[in-house]
Amino acid sequence: MEQLVRTIVAEALSEDIGSGDITSELVVPAEAMAEGRFLAKEAGVLSGLDICEECFSQLDDACVFEALCSEGDAFTAGTDLARIRGRARALLAAERTALNFLQRLCGIATLTRQFSEAVRGTGAQIVDTRKTTPRLRVLEKRAVKVGGGHNHRFALYDGILLKDNHIELVGGVKAAVAAARAGRPHTLKVEVEVTNLEQLVEAIEVGADIVMLDNMSIEELSEAVKVAAGQVITEASGGVGLETVAAIAATGVDLISVGALTHSAPAIDISLEITGVGAL
Amino acid sequence: MEQLVRTIVAEALSEDIGSGDITSELVVPAEAMAEGRFLAKEAGVLSGLDICEECFSQLDDACVFEALCSEGDAFTAGTDLARIRGRARALLAAERTALNFLQRLCGIATLTRQFSEAVRGTGAQIVDTRKTTPRLRVLEKRAVKVGGGHNHRFALYDGILLKDNHIELVGGVKAAVAAARAGRPHTLKVEVEVTNLEQLVEAIEVGADIVMLDNMSIEELSEAVKVAAGQVITEASGGVGLETVAAIAATGVDLISVGALTHSAPAIDISLEITGVGAL
Amino acid sequence: MEQLVRTIVAEALSEDIGSGDITSELVVPAEAMAEGRFLAKEAGVLSGLDICEECFSQLDDACVFEALCSEGDAFTAGTDLARIRGRARALLAAERTALNFLQRLCGIATLTRQFSEAVRGTGAQIVDTRKTTPRLRVLEKRAVKVGGGHNHRFALYDGILLKDNHIELVGGVKAAVAAARAGRPHTLKVEVEVTNLEQLVEAIEVGADIVMLDNMSIEELSEAVKVAAGQVITEASGGVGLETVAAIAATGVDLISVGALTHSAPAIDISLEITGVGAL
Amino acid sequence: MEQLVRTIVAEALSEDIGSGDITSELVVPAEAMAEGRFLAKEAGVLSGLDICEECFSQLDDACVFEALCSEGDAFTAGTDLARIRGRARALLAAERTALNFLQRLCGIATLTRQFSEAVRGTGAQIVDTRKTTPRLRVLEKRAVKVGGGHNHRFALYDGILLKDNHIELVGGVKAAVAAARAGRPHTLKVEVEVTNLEQLVEAIEVGADIVMLDNMSIEELSEAVKVAAGQVITEASGGVGLETVAAIAATGVDLISVGALTHSAPAIDISLEITGVGAL
Amino acid sequence: MEQLVRTIVAEALSEDIGSGDITSELVVPAEAMAEGRFLAKEAGVLSGLDICEECFSQLDDACVFEALCSEGDAFTAGTDLARIRGRARALLAAERTALNFLQRLCGIATLTRQFSEAVRGTGAQIVDTRKTTPRLRVLEKRAVKVGGGHNHRFALYDGILLKDNHIELVGGVKAAVAAARAGRPHTLKVEVEVTNLEQLVEAIEVGADIVMLDNMSIEELSEAVKVAAGQVITEASGGVGLETVAAIAATGVDLISVGALTHSAPAIDISLEITGVGAL
Amino acid sequence: MEQLVRTIVAEALSEDIGSGDITSELVVPAEAMAEGRFLAKEAGVLSGLDICEECFSQLDDACVFEALCSEGDAFTAGTDLARIRGRARALLAAERTALNFLQRLCGIATLTRQFSEAVRGTGAQIVDTRKTTPRLRVLEKRAVKVGGGHNHRFALYDGILLKDNHIELVGGVKAAVAAARAGRPHTLKVEVEVTNLEQLVEAIEVGADIVMLDNMSIEELSEAVKVAAGQVITEASGGVGLETVAAIAATGVDLISVGALTHSAPAIDISLEITGVGAL
Repeated sequence: MEQLVRTIVAEALSEDIGSGDITSELVVPAEAMAEGRFLAKEAGVLSGLDICEECFSQLDDACVFEALCSEGDAFTAGTDLARIRGRARALLAAERTALNFLQRLCGIATLTRQFSEAVRGTGAQIVDTRKTTPRLRVLEKRAVKVGGGHNHRFALYDGILLKDNHIELVGGVKAAVAAARAGRPHTLKVEVEVTNLEQLVEAIEVGADIVMLDNMSIEELSEAVKVAAGQVITEASGGVGLETVAAIAATGVDLISVGALTHSAPAIDISLEITGVGAL
Repeated sequence: MEQLVRTIVAEALSEDIGSGDITSELVVPAEAMAEGRFLAKEAGVLSGLDICEECFSQLDDACVFEALCSEGDAFTAGTDLARIRGRARALLAAERTALNFLQRLCGIATLTRQFSEAVRGTGAQIVDTRKTTPRLRVLEKRAVKVGGGHNHRFALYDGILLKDNHIELVGGVKAAVAAARAGRPHTLKVEVEVTNLEQLVEAIEVGADIVMLDNMSIEELSEAVKVAAGQVITEASGGVGLETVAAIAATGVDLISVGALTHSAPAIDISLEITGVGAL
Repeated sequence: MEQLVRTIVAEALSEDIGSGDITSELVVPAEAMAEGRFLAKEAGVLSGLDICEECFSQLDDACVFEALCSEGDAFTAGTDLARIRGRARALLAAERTALNFLQRLCGIATLTRQFSEAVRGTGAQIVDTRKTTPRLRVLEKRAVKVGGGHNHRFALYDGILLKDNHIELVGGVKAAVAAARAGRPHTLKVEVEVTNLEQLVEAIEVGADIVMLDNMSIEELSEAVKVAAGQVITEASGGVGLETVAAIAATGVDLISVGALTHSAPAIDISLEITGVGAL
Repeated sequence: MEQLVRTIVAEALSEDIGSGDITSELVVPAEAMAEGRFLAKEAGVLSGLDICEECFSQLDDACVFEALCSEGDAFTAGTDLARIRGRARALLAAERTALNFLQRLCGIATLTRQFSEAVRGTGAQIVDTRKTTPRLRVLEKRAVKVGGGHNHRFALYDGILLKDNHIELVGGVKAAVAAARAGRPHTLKVEVEVTNLEQLVEAIEVGADIVMLDNMSIEELSEAVKVAAGQVITEASGGVGLETVAAIAATGVDLISVGALTHSAPAIDISLEITGVGAL
Repeated sequence: MEQLVRTIVAEALSEDIGSGDITSELVVPAEAMAEGRFLAKEAGVLSGLDICEECFSQLDDACVFEALCSEGDAFTAGTDLARIRGRARALLAAERTALNFLQRLCGIATLTRQFSEAVRGTGAQIVDTRKTTPRLRVLEKRAVKVGGGHNHRFALYDGILLKDNHIELVGGVKAAVAAARAGRPHTLKVEVEVTNLEQLVEAIEVGADIVMLDNMSIEELSEAVKVAAGQVITEASGGVGLETVAAIAATGVDLISVGALTHSAPAIDISLEITGVGAL
Repeated sequence: MEQLVRTIVAEALSEDIGSGDITSELVVPAEAMAEGRFLAKEAGVLSGLDICEECFSQLDDACVFEALCSEGDAFTAGTDLARIRGRARALLAAERTALNFLQRLCGIATLTRQFSEAVRGTGAQIVDTRKTTPRLRVLEKRAVKVGGGHNHRFALYDGILLKDNHIELVGGVKAAVAAARAGRPHTLKVEVEVTNLEQLVEAIEVGADIVMLDNMSIEELSEAVKVAAGQVITEASGGVGLETVAAIAATGVDLISVGALTHSAPAIDISLEITGVGAL
């Protein structure tokens, strides 16, 4: 597990435990052992079981964590996702933090899977956005991939995307794309947001590699795909929902970006059930 | 603004900007200025505008941020929440991070307000849980208060709550409450989770201060409130939704805790619209 | 061992070792081994032997540390508290830092034990304060418990205590307690400082849970306990010394808080004696 | 103020405030202002008023702090050491942390002053040791100087001191000093601990620059000073108390090191008295 | 100045100052002021004057720093690059750290300028590599741009480059490029290292966007450019020196990457000359 | 390995890997293993192989690293310095960072060895300076020792060196040395920079321990050594090159400090060659 993720977990545990888990210290003997299982209380797609395990390992490096499902598996309500044995105080102290990660990441994977299924059979790919939870992006983008989506640029530093505000500031699609092409690292493509066909034509003429078609109707998207004619990669963006995504995909766009994957996925209900106690 | 929040913002900006905002560095002159407004694209309750401002201030300490609404205000779609002027590169680099905070926190405040309104006129208070986003709890609990909710304990270190797993480990409600009462700091009350009336009676007898009534039906809750008879504070918990919360409140419980406030609140759609450019 | 404590130890070692232990690097071969014992040079109560061990483990994870006494044990001058074997350079580099922790924590446990013994047989408990060494509170409060004392709130975030300055600012005991009761998390009690019987009566009337009786004479304390009559928990505070604590306890107060436990406990003299060298 | 000290203060405040000062947030309005004075409740020597100020400044950068005494001043009980005005919540939140620093540092300066006075008129200097509070050494060594003492090496990295354990490991004073002289950076002297006159003679012969005379009686010290005869700097060490230090100094040693200055100095009692409230 | 750079500077100052600048504290009064100038003792190209200024500002936020040259300016021996006035102790404490940054960054800019001049008039661009000083990449890549070079990918996270070891592991250029194309974020191009014309043809056929021509002779490079025929971007790499770079550029390659820009640029000799003292 | 070095390595890896090694994640299976060797492509002196190993260990704690040469060994082009086996992704992700450390540190050791050899047989020692890479000093000073050089003071905190700017500020060599001698910790010597014989005589008279002879000609150095006559340690400094160092040493100075050892040593070319793949 990479250092960044270990740090995220350590800080999350510290946020919840701070100067100590008063309750368990009062009632659970330091030497008590326990075992439990992670029970899915509703259906979903698994992501983040390794993060869940890391929470427990950081508090009890001798705990035994056994995954019963794999990253990306769809599970039904009632499924046991994993089993754990270890020091009872560690299990209780890490429980909430571990579930907070797991429920959120499964939520994202589950919603992404729904979007992916909805466009199956079209050529379109579901991609994420930078609308992620601050400081959890590395985990959330991973959950998107596990759910069947694809990752857009990770951050401001690894992709060029000229958005409406850039175009407003620079004075037009042409000027913006030309400036970006002139100075960009040779390893990066240039993507530009367009809101109508005139801008699309401009973008193609000046050499954009990718166009983000922002908030277009189905008709406009269809027309845009025709105009693009394979010269640029097309990405539909804005107001995409589960009820509209299939129609958007049918227009022939290459990519459909969905902010809700990470900013509005409801958590999946999962609990830790203690199944045994004592000196295991 | 407290140091903890400044650190959260600094790390969030670092996550998104890293080695630099390539796009803006390519197309926006370093000396360019811009101004914009934060536009609500749907109705909601405001929380986190100061966090939003902090994002921009950390990148441009001379930027001017003018709040047009106050923490806790309900706003409609189309409302301008704030205005900003500053260096264009700073505005573009902080935009996404600032909105990621603001949209999430408004989402929590908005959902909390809906729950609060639903129990208005009853004696029940809506309280949050520890089911928060890892490392954002301080902001999310604040949004709950702004939305009209109340805060439960912040973390494991500042409140005693004997849950099902503690009771399982210790061997019953009585043993658990007794142990907690014996050793607790004198400043803390003892709360215990009960799942039926027998446990409730036990809890009262052994001197619990607060009982969490876990996943009880409306009928069970009503009965429990009668049994409690003011001797203990009662908290309903588990599976509380907007459609059921009023009925739960009507049973006479003192508190209703709702995990969804922080783990499943959908983001509120807000955007930054650039309204002017040049050497302002 | 929790992460917070490991960080404290790591930073303490770094403070003393910095760019390197010049002396040992000059005269002790990198491969040399050594063994030694921790010798108490005066009587005391043990606290912090695990912190002591952690200092050595962080520099030599293969070192063998054998505790000969347990947390809370009273020891006499001449007692061997522990034995250690490991790389000689690690032993020498960690020695001072390890002893600095150990001597201070034993000092606190020892002084607390003296206060606890002095009130034995009364109903009073000795409690600590927030007058701890900055950034060592978690260790010092632990030493207090080991010594037979009880912990007051850990910090500003986990207990409500309305002190003289709050009351001055808010305009009286009644207003302060009322405001605190209105908004407090339901898991916390309300404690208020009172300096005379009028304030005590006010505090009881307005529903305080605990009263801190500040700097009262033995006579005033006795009177206050009568007035309190079990309606509130009573805590004597201010100027408590070993010579006065028994008389204070005899007044019938529930708690006696003693700042000196952590701010003025003299260190217990302990040394590390090298007992063997070579390739052990 | 250097960055290291700012970090120490920030972490100390964070330790005490954490997720928030519940009490003040409940009863003190966010906009309330207050003013107060720092009142010495017993006599002492001042050290650390700047650290005290830094605590408040970090929470309210607009607060006004006025020092009424200077670093190193002796003060009597009843003296006002400083005045402060600022946001009431900031004053209350920083109060304990600020006093914890100030009381400890004044304690060290006061005890050091007592030792310094006790050797006044002799040629001996009082020096500190590495027996400091973990992670506060930079402040504690400063307090020693303010009190009239001198600093020994700061840490393991900036001075060579061959102690009993080194000599044990290396096989004698001669071997140890010779090895140190052979490889040391040319900017550092070599100090060696000796416990008898034979070792002292050895140390001088092999070219030590400084000898630490460990736990010698007054007679032994006198003899050692004669043997040293100005060829090496002499430092008396071990079991030095206020009642014995003058006699030690009278033997003619150059330096007397006193661990108690930093490991056992009782705190000086100082309080913050709120003297005014409202919109100042 | 971005937070990352401020942290680099703060840590560099801490490395050199640690527990204090003993020399200046001994001989320079705390209140003394000084002024000085940064004198180039040999010719070069300027980079990093803002980092130099930041070093002084962090120790004396009231110091006045006046740049006399701009980033990217060529200067001759004897040129004054900047002037500074501030607290004398701050100037002396920051001097070495500031110069260590400045001399290194000017060294990189100077060497890059020499390479850029050597290929002037050809279509080739000089680009940097990831062979930078650990933890200083953001500054060193900036110095390359200032010197007239271009930046290759910043790190492993923002560009795809299939190197010899990837190809070895995957089993050939074709397999490697195909795998990369299949899964890459749509914003990134695919670059692949080739060592002969067969691999080059493979790379073009399978759709690589960029080819790195590794350690080819001038003749091979010329042939490769012909084969590439504008279908892919060509980058010459390996063993490029000032004496060979013009000939390499003349082959028609698009890019020439030079590791020596950052791993072997000699420092430019610059000193801080104190020009005035006293209460300025 | 000490904590400081582990942190340096961790941050260096984080700088290069950030949110992930895109290339390897695309083309190398997570479970693939690989083995390789570190091949010197030019002659040099080894330093930093343990840092190199640490880079890989932090990413794959099960990797097997076998050193084939020892710290300080001279190697020829074509030498295998070490072998490694481990997870292929870890090898590829750590490769560049590991080599960046190794190449730089070997560069320093190699250049230092050349200077050391050049003065062999004279009494002079080669010493380093504080002209090191910011935040890598602990590694670079180690490489100097490995190469046969000696370390000057590590930083501002562990040695007293009165330089031209101090003398300018204080008003002369005599005043500066006298002030330093009066207040210095007794463990430190006093070094002063002199630029002519008058200053040298002053320095000796006032009791300096070491003189830095700054930028003197061979004739001046010879004269200075005569004047010093063993009363002070002499250090030649300024503009020392491989072509002049032998003549400088022949003047009889004790030490010759060379900034170029750390600020301008060219990197030694070393590569990692993958020699096997699959499930090893």
